[in-house]
Amino acid sequence: MNTLTRKGIEKLVPYPPGKPIEELERELGITGSIKLASNENPLGPSPLAVQAIQEKVKTLNRYPDGSGYYLKEKISDIFGLAQDQIIIGNGSNELIELIIRTFLSVGEEFIQAYPTFLVYEKIVTGAGGEAISIPLSDFRIDLAAILKAINPKTKMIFINNPNNPTGSALSKNEVLAFLRTIPQDIVVVLDEAYIEFVSDKEVANGLDLLRHYPRLIVLRTFSKLYGLAGLRIGYGFASAEIIDYMNRVRQPFNVNTLAQAAATAALADSEFVSETLKIVRDGLDYLFDQLENLGLEYVPTQTNFFLIKVPMGGKKTYELMLKEGVIVRSMQSYGLGDYIRINVGLPEENERFIKTLKKVLNER
Amino acid sequence: MNTLTRKGIEKLVPYPPGKPIEELERELGITGSIKLASNENPLGPSPLAVQAIQEKVKTLNRYPDGSGYYLKEKISDIFGLAQDQIIIGNGSNELIELIIRTFLSVGEEFIQAYPTFLVYEKIVTGAGGEAISIPLSDFRIDLAAILKAINPKTKMIFINNPNNPTGSALSKNEVLAFLRTIPQDIVVVLDEAYIEFVSDKEVANGLDLLRHYPRLIVLRTFSKLYGLAGLRIGYGFASAEIIDYMNRVRQPFNVNTLAQAAATAALADSEFVSETLKIVRDGLDYLFDQLENLGLEYVPTQTNFFLIKVPMGGKKTYELMLKEGVIVRSMQSYGLGDYIRINVGLPEENERFIKTLKKVLNER
Repeated sequence: MNTLTRKGIEKLVPYPPGKPIEELERELGITGSIKLASNENPLGPSPLAVQAIQEKVKTLNRYPDGSGYYLKEKISDIFGLAQDQIIIGNGSNELIELIIRTFLSVGEEFIQAYPTFLVYEKIVTGAGGEAISIPLSDFRIDLAAILKAINPKTKMIFINNPNNPTGSALSKNEVLAFLRTIPQDIVVVLDEAYIEFVSDKEVANGLDLLRHYPRLIVLRTFSKLYGLAGLRIGYGFASAEIIDYMNRVRQPFNVNTLAQAAATAALADSEFVSETLKIVRDGLDYLFDQLENLGLEYVPTQTNFFLIKVPMGGKKTYELMLKEGVIVRSMQSYGLGDYIRINVGLPEENERFIKTLKKVLNER
Repeated sequence: MNTLTRKGIEKLVPYPPGKPIEELERELGITGSIKLASNENPLGPSPLAVQAIQEKVKTLNRYPDGSGYYLKEKISDIFGLAQDQIIIGNGSNELIELIIRTFLSVGEEFIQAYPTFLVYEKIVTGAGGEAISIPLSDFRIDLAAILKAINPKTKMIFINNPNNPTGSALSKNEVLAFLRTIPQDIVVVLDEAYIEFVSDKEVANGLDLLRHYPRLIVLRTFSKLYGLAGLRIGYGFASAEIIDYMNRVRQPFNVNTLAQAAATAALADSEFVSETLKIVRDGLDYLFDQLENLGLEYVPTQTNFFLIKVPMGGKKTYELMLKEGVIVRSMQSYGLGDYIRINVGLPEENERFIKTLKKVLNER
């Protein structure tokens, strides 16, 4: 018999069939649990986005606009880029996949930091590429070490800035110096899923860097700041040449109608954006204060999430808190077994998290 | 410099940036145009699906259920298959892509009929595979000729049944005999996007064939019968082994929250299904009658769309009707230059189509 799968697939781990929270609650015999595990916006979706969805719902028998015309027009206005430098995807996850499928050939190498967003390595492996992982240095992406790892097989470098799961961010000067030093034919992807939460003005912004490096791709998402994770919509910026190749590979109806309408409306929802940024900053202040009172170490962040070092380890803490109806993320699969990651929730969710953490710490 | 793109991408044609109908109307100075070009459901989306969307819209800040738990449970109940034999995708288009990315290696061959759904060849080419196209015989897929084209490099065969754009369908006996004859290591994909419209009881149904061929994958969609094209959701059936490999490559959040909820509800919307089937059958009767009166040839169909042979050719007819606000599909890019393809619309849309076609025919 022929080998069934293509090269790389055999290295991918089987997918663990998960369950919705409702089913998990039923099994555990609890209700009213809260989730601080996926860096979501605790306020809900943008109200203007919700309104735009209501207006479009009766048109769902029609295919989506394959060109993303109105959304790209809006993004173009806001960011001052030509429409042929913009692409939209079924979440920025799909754009990550599209980049790898368009540019990375079987056997070529890809460099990433470790730990970072786990999706990069999964997709590269599935596409038959080789992932080279460069350890973080003090929770920050180590550009000097990435530079040293570059070799003739290096086709692509992924930089998550700010980095998930650490929340650390690289400065404009650091990234610019890096881009000026590396071979200019490497495709560099700057994944800026959390860029809107950054408070430090020195942090790199991909939009300013595009003109400095021809093969730079900047990725953004509506999942976090705009509260649209459930609809799946992300966007990317690059040169017209790069976007053209990605559009050839992209399927025309990759982004659903409601996502396009919701994202277009959300970009104009400045009230929701301000509210979200305020709740995140106030929440971080509160949580950091409380953790200091508890004598727990945490990692400073430029995002809406951060790492906490927990005495009984991330996995055990996750399990104990889950039984109390507080869902956090164990960092074991990220190689940070001593840590959990949480995102900022609503004020009452933050308080419940601290109360539950105290309980769990006391009971061990 | 490194070659920028991976093998195959250079063969893909640049994406023509399209425009939404609203923009097209503005340019042409018309309003109220009707679209019979994309085989959509003219009744709108399933009302139960719309209701399910309303109930979920406030949860969009949360990621979708990555396992598709409730939808797969419903599909499993209806079709009597285990949940590990079911997969859901961002439209069946994404499942086509996932199949090719999971099973077809660079340089391997794929066989399809021609003309058929254009997406297969595009994705195979982008993945570095070779597409072998076997001409239809009297508008029907020619299984005998496909059989002869099989060679040691053949990895996969795509069969669109009923076939788009011809509307013809293969019988169970034909497909079964074919599956019994071919080398058993070839992956066979039966794309059944229009299966629910079939009236001929002899037509093959993939669900009955699964147990006869281990590497059979059956694809279905919510875009047509259920009126959810804008939301992007399709599903597939295969052996647990095949589905397991596809799940390894699949991104966990590929199907948005509203699509999952809408599809689950639509499966229970028997009233909408009956109404749709009635409007399609009545519409076909009306359209066939009228075309016979006009002395125009058409191709009999098992679906909600069909081909019409037009004296001034498909492209010209498309252009002339577009100016009258009636959007049909020219078959030129499908190698059927003498034809247009239309789907059944609402009764008033069918009447307007006939009236406009008469006008266009008289004016030439």
